[in-house]
Amino acid sequence: MNHFFKVKSLEEVMALTSRFFPVESEKIDVSQGFSRVLAKDLVSQKDMPGFRRATMDGYAVCANSTFGASESSPAWLEIAGTILMGDVPNFSIKQGQAAKISTGGMLPKGADSVVMVEYTELVDELSVEIYKSVAPLQHVIDASEDFAKKETVLSKGTFIRPQEKGLAAGLGFSQIDAFKIPKVGIISTGDEIIPIEEEPSPGKIRDINSYTLAGFISEAHGIPVHYGIIKDDPEALKIAVEKALEQTDMVLISGGSSVGTKDYTVDVLTGLPDTDILVHGMSVSPGKPTILAKAGSKPVWGLPGQVVSAMVVLKIVVIPFLNKLKGLDPKDRTIRIPAKLTRNVSSAQGRRDFVRVLLEKKDGQMLAKPVLGKSGLIRTMIHADGLLEIGDHVEGLEKDTLVDIILL
Amino acid sequence: MNHFFKVKSLEEVMALTSRFFPVESEKIDVSQGFSRVLAKDLVSQKDMPGFRRATMDGYAVCANSTFGASESSPAWLEIAGTILMGDVPNFSIKQGQAAKISTGGMLPKGADSVVMVEYTELVDELSVEIYKSVAPLQHVIDASEDFAKKETVLSKGTFIRPQEKGLAAGLGFSQIDAFKIPKVGIISTGDEIIPIEEEPSPGKIRDINSYTLAGFISEAHGIPVHYGIIKDDPEALKIAVEKALEQTDMVLISGGSSVGTKDYTVDVLTGLPDTDILVHGMSVSPGKPTILAKAGSKPVWGLPGQVVSAMVVLKIVVIPFLNKLKGLDPKDRTIRIPAKLTRNVSSAQGRRDFVRVLLEKKDGQMLAKPVLGKSGLIRTMIHADGLLEIGDHVEGLEKDTLVDIILL
Repeated sequence: MNHFFKVKSLEEVMALTSRFFPVESEKIDVSQGFSRVLAKDLVSQKDMPGFRRATMDGYAVCANSTFGASESSPAWLEIAGTILMGDVPNFSIKQGQAAKISTGGMLPKGADSVVMVEYTELVDELSVEIYKSVAPLQHVIDASEDFAKKETVLSKGTFIRPQEKGLAAGLGFSQIDAFKIPKVGIISTGDEIIPIEEEPSPGKIRDINSYTLAGFISEAHGIPVHYGIIKDDPEALKIAVEKALEQTDMVLISGGSSVGTKDYTVDVLTGLPDTDILVHGMSVSPGKPTILAKAGSKPVWGLPGQVVSAMVVLKIVVIPFLNKLKGLDPKDRTIRIPAKLTRNVSSAQGRRDFVRVLLEKKDGQMLAKPVLGKSGLIRTMIHADGLLEIGDHVEGLEKDTLVDIILL
Repeated sequence: MNHFFKVKSLEEVMALTSRFFPVESEKIDVSQGFSRVLAKDLVSQKDMPGFRRATMDGYAVCANSTFGASESSPAWLEIAGTILMGDVPNFSIKQGQAAKISTGGMLPKGADSVVMVEYTELVDELSVEIYKSVAPLQHVIDASEDFAKKETVLSKGTFIRPQEKGLAAGLGFSQIDAFKIPKVGIISTGDEIIPIEEEPSPGKIRDINSYTLAGFISEAHGIPVHYGIIKDDPEALKIAVEKALEQTDMVLISGGSSVGTKDYTVDVLTGLPDTDILVHGMSVSPGKPTILAKAGSKPVWGLPGQVVSAMVVLKIVVIPFLNKLKGLDPKDRTIRIPAKLTRNVSSAQGRRDFVRVLLEKKDGQMLAKPVLGKSGLIRTMIHADGLLEIGDHVEGLEKDTLVDIILL
């Protein structure tokens, strides 16, 4: 094992997402589709909506019957019939005629537009006055105007928001091919870590990382699977990692920071079959001691035990790998908010710094206020709305600099 | 029933959130806490971390033993012992002494700071040289520095992110009081609407709204409950609404736009016991025909049948009410991204317009590009990343205006 592993930059670590591939796909009900990722292109089998449809309540007309119509000189049209919702009109209209129609109704043959009811006045049962002209295809959606037959409407790798879910449903895909939801195994290590149900004696601390890490995995629409707290014992850690690798798609190990136990994680990972250590230290703060291995096809992470560092590394570094496993572009769905820095922030050259900030809107401008307090305090993560990224070659940022904040 | 209900502004509708109250609370495992809302203040029972803890690997010292230490003139300290992780040191140190310690370890009595290992050199088993001075409390977290005993660490109404979940766990709250997850009943109406599994004949359209509305409810961490498609029949709608009101905390009815059936929803709601119609039309586009009733204590919505309008109203208007039911501030967790408009956008005075936009980053500036195409096309929601809000008294916005985009 190479103990002199070169510390990697954030970009070098991110580039390693290319070494991992999406999990298998499965057929799911479209009703369960929200937050999933499409594993196959969705191609429309028919035109959508499939017929010429009104988008307003009013009268279906031939647009040229209304040309020149105004308040002072209305067009007078004969009412040829009324269209019931969901029905195919059993009549057609020609110039000089109109048909009563509601939003969503099917236009009769001959009609190319709809006059809004607000611009009409019923004269008697058989005639209506029109006060405003319409253009052809105004207030209608044509048969293939939303999506045409054989069109690729959603591509493989698309995150399914509510609208994509609705579109798939509207096209009749009651089942869709989606990537499985990756399972992420979570292991906490350290002789000082105790289950949260226990009362810590001095020197001991409750297991926070299992809870925060699982939270971020849930937030990113993965499935966290807990493997408990492992004492600083390489054999026990090896058994836990092997079990987690068997049952999940990615494994997170947090901690392992006792004197002389620092390299337990690397040693255990090096001892696994078909495993490469890809990262052993990153020039990222917080998060320097991060380890990434590829065990078979699966990523295994050694995360800092310090709770704030573990959270930042998870959010910034690990989630892009989870995205890759989900079938997404690794950088997809990371939201950054432009904001103005409220004070000078110093930073060390040669590393990427992530500073916790609070966002506040003032006079229409979003302000990013660095959260004060020692970096090891969970309190700072509770008070923070986001993270400010400071580049490797920057000594610091001045007050009033415009920055992009990664939402927490 | 008052058929001449005054159309309400968006602010007037939003103010009605005050007429509704959070659902009941329940005890849940903190492991299930992500995305829930605290129903009781969380007060720490003990100091956190509870002991003076190292935040770096190195040597625990009395800071004044290191004053003046430098590369050229190191301080020489006697090693009094090594602290094992999770252990209470069985020795104390005094000036001139140091104890080997790892991140997370408990400082021995007498020590007030930690010198990072990088600035030390072991002379022999019993002595170490220190090359850099430290200040008192440097590289340590004091016993009550993160949270003090009896401090309110998280308030009622807090949305539980991964860090709040971890904090609650770290304080030993294996169970927490959280508001129940509101259930939202979803009813689609309209003679033209068919189940998605069926092949639509001309004039018919598949039920898209049930899927999009449920998606937005899931996204906002509510539980959607489906009550199917109801034909334009007031009696059938009444039965469905009564059932949904019995089983859920809020009800959404989309559609009801057939000729002569427009007021079915209002009529049905008016006929329910203990029900007030609060909104019957909003000066919001899309979304004008929106209806809000208070049935007993529960909100019941009549949403437009048009799929894009239904989505926009849900996102902009209904979600704040869901937040209120969840125990959140209604406006909480609405993310807006500042961006520069790429073209002129016109708008009607006297109403709030929501325009779909695509976000694109260019030269470090976020650009908001209005999505072209008729408002009734689902395609426009698929291409959109967000919604641009245009004020009631604005005729339009000019190219290059700085705007805030609500993320979709």
